[in-house]
Amino acid sequence: MPDSPFDVSVQDSVATVTFTRPATRNRFTMQMCLELGAFFDRINADDEIRVVILTGSGSAFCAGADLSEGFIGATELTAEQEATVARVGEVDGVSRDPGGWLALKIARSLKPVIVAFNGDAVGIGVTMALPADIRIAAESARFGFVFARRGIVPEAASTWFLPRLVGIAQAVEWVMTGRIFDADEALRGGLVSAVVPDDQLLDKARALAAEIVANTSAISVAAARRMLWHGLELSSPWYAHADESHGMRTMAGTPDGQEGVLSFLEKRPARFPMSVADDLPGFVPDWPTRPDEL
Amino acid sequence: MPDSPFDVSVQDSVATVTFTRPATRNRFTMQMCLELGAFFDRINADDEIRVVILTGSGSAFCAGADLSEGFIGATELTAEQEATVARVGEVDGVSRDPGGWLALKIARSLKPVIVAFNGDAVGIGVTMALPADIRIAAESARFGFVFARRGIVPEAASTWFLPRLVGIAQAVEWVMTGRIFDADEALRGGLVSAVVPDDQLLDKARALAAEIVANTSAISVAAARRMLWHGLELSSPWYAHADESHGMRTMAGTPDGQEGVLSFLEKRPARFPMSVADDLPGFVPDWPTRPDEL
Amino acid sequence: MPDSPFDVSVQDSVATVTFTRPATRNRFTMQMCLELGAFFDRINADDEIRVVILTGSGSAFCAGADLSEGFIGATELTAEQEATVARVGEVDGVSRDPGGWLALKIARSLKPVIVAFNGDAVGIGVTMALPADIRIAAESARFGFVFARRGIVPEAASTWFLPRLVGIAQAVEWVMTGRIFDADEALRGGLVSAVVPDDQLLDKARALAAEIVANTSAISVAAARRMLWHGLELSSPWYAHADESHGMRTMAGTPDGQEGVLSFLEKRPARFPMSVADDLPGFVPDWPTRPDEL
Repeated sequence: MPDSPFDVSVQDSVATVTFTRPATRNRFTMQMCLELGAFFDRINADDEIRVVILTGSGSAFCAGADLSEGFIGATELTAEQEATVARVGEVDGVSRDPGGWLALKIARSLKPVIVAFNGDAVGIGVTMALPADIRIAAESARFGFVFARRGIVPEAASTWFLPRLVGIAQAVEWVMTGRIFDADEALRGGLVSAVVPDDQLLDKARALAAEIVANTSAISVAAARRMLWHGLELSSPWYAHADESHGMRTMAGTPDGQEGVLSFLEKRPARFPMSVADDLPGFVPDWPTRPDEL
Repeated sequence: MPDSPFDVSVQDSVATVTFTRPATRNRFTMQMCLELGAFFDRINADDEIRVVILTGSGSAFCAGADLSEGFIGATELTAEQEATVARVGEVDGVSRDPGGWLALKIARSLKPVIVAFNGDAVGIGVTMALPADIRIAAESARFGFVFARRGIVPEAASTWFLPRLVGIAQAVEWVMTGRIFDADEALRGGLVSAVVPDDQLLDKARALAAEIVANTSAISVAAARRMLWHGLELSSPWYAHADESHGMRTMAGTPDGQEGVLSFLEKRPARFPMSVADDLPGFVPDWPTRPDEL
Repeated sequence: MPDSPFDVSVQDSVATVTFTRPATRNRFTMQMCLELGAFFDRINADDEIRVVILTGSGSAFCAGADLSEGFIGATELTAEQEATVARVGEVDGVSRDPGGWLALKIARSLKPVIVAFNGDAVGIGVTMALPADIRIAAESARFGFVFARRGIVPEAASTWFLPRLVGIAQAVEWVMTGRIFDADEALRGGLVSAVVPDDQLLDKARALAAEIVANTSAISVAAARRMLWHGLELSSPWYAHADESHGMRTMAGTPDGQEGVLSFLEKRPARFPMSVADDLPGFVPDWPTRPDEL
């Protein structure tokens, strides 16, 4: 059985997931894909984990797909790959893109996801980070949406996420040139929200995570995360208004909503008792919406 | 009968709406909600008003919901609150979030809305401003999407508006941390388009309003306002093309369209004769679209 | 027969289209519209052209519609204009806005389009550039969405494109004031991605084009262009995931996909053999989606 592609350590309610194959520049393998997807499935029911930080060891965050495996989803697969693809399943009659399978699991997280790009993030190494909530980079990190240089197409549902995150003009420029760009260009283009010296990257990520953990209701954060992303799916603001009307009426009657008012009126820190695992209210949308036909 | 929660003064076709309860930091009450909504209903039929400026008196623009009223939409309401909620109505079988009721009325305005944040804007104090067209801030203003710190969820249709205004990454960061941030962060994040010294705030807002009033057709502005926001609801640009084809064909035959060409060819300021109250053409979309099921 | 409204020169697989009526400030005429639309139809089947640069001669890129023709789409048309409109066709029962007719053809391009604003771009002069992929400006260029100053409404499907390119807040401010603004404001607002000295404009555009031509599969670029823009039409990321799963599986089995892997593993420049004219795979979406009812 191969080494695990990543380690998980949990401290102060924050799970830090670190890719552990620096010798391969943390290249994306089917094993990494499946285990990471399973991790995100698990944490939605794990109240010990309030926030996830995703990072890598060595000079790369993830240098793209391991091409020695051939293209994932390629016509010719080994028996082992066929078995894996069978686990991932099909969509619309074809084998699913595993990067997209993973991206949709990250998107579905009830816990905020912070990606800390410690180094190079290329291909799936960057597209898997798009459904995360916060992206920050070490100064030495570089990025590339290199698909057009490999004769393939963008994946991991990035043709949905990327134009919404960085704007369509920046998205097409990065994808059409396929060029490698540095952390400053990533910051200017809106791919990351901060660039910090390499040795301060994890401190910065942990500070952001701690700010969420310390002050908020886990239920409120889970609900808001789904509602905001789902908001991008909605045509009319009336739909958001309907969801929020249900949500506000519901939360006002819960222990967390009542503690929110009381702690505010009593000018003290709030202690929110509710559990995401057990108490998630029905108004929280099941984002991303899987259309009936897929 | 309580004092009015805001004053309205009209000068040079610009209505300045100023919240008038600085002692409560202009906290949001059901009375403020209902009267402000009624104001926005009225002005669509009032040709004296071309632009609305929304601002506050004292150290706050609006410091959030008045929690002494309990959560609006909460399970336990006073008889007076029940009566108010009955006036606001229901959506999808539950009492409507009053903040969303107001936000959708601001969204529906045929007149441009400029919010001048004179000071702190927290919770509904900032979310009610998202459907406005232009937001500027005094240097001393602070902001907070504090819902997760109160055990509740974002409202006022902000889960639709916020990710579209500032991008999904900035939206989730502000909402998940619930942190209070200053005017510079609001500017960098795209929540406001300008930050000015406190004593220049209203001058700046009036200059923007005057630029609209002086040079444009009121009908064109009303139509463009609705068409641009409605453009965000449309899946395909073909729908925009259809609306615009109707609009261009219609306007070319109206007094305003003809004056636009003539004044341009004669190199003189235009004097547009049409009335928003009486002459609004049928091609102008009734944004926000209320879906049949709501 | 009138002079051609633009010249086309092709070098190093890049077609440079230059408006050639500086005496009229390259004003938009029905002839320019129809010939430019026909050009974009042609190049999708022309493998000699990998990238299009659109620019102007003289002090303007395009100073707006030639109002001496009357409003295009106006009620009163000359017989020649009626004939032209008949060629452009109808949508939803009215004569189509010719600017939108052109914009949707540019949108549909399988080749990246770079607009190099050499000078003033007003009205249709700027809205026609919104469906392009990259926009850069000379320092002396100025811009204006002047429709509300002419008593008309935005066109060229700009009520769909503009809020998605620059955000709804910037879009409404530019359209409601109708003001003329300079290249720096265009850069800050996200309308262009770079501003360069006037005499370096074309060099900059050509460098961007060369970066695309040198390193990428033409099929991958065509597919990615359509997929990213189409991604903005999609409600759920599941639809993008389905398209990409088809795309990845397909491309992995093509000569371009196989050359992409081989050249990477052999650490040499790729030579992609496939033709956009002959080999475009079926998974590439036919963006913009024309709804059945239009």
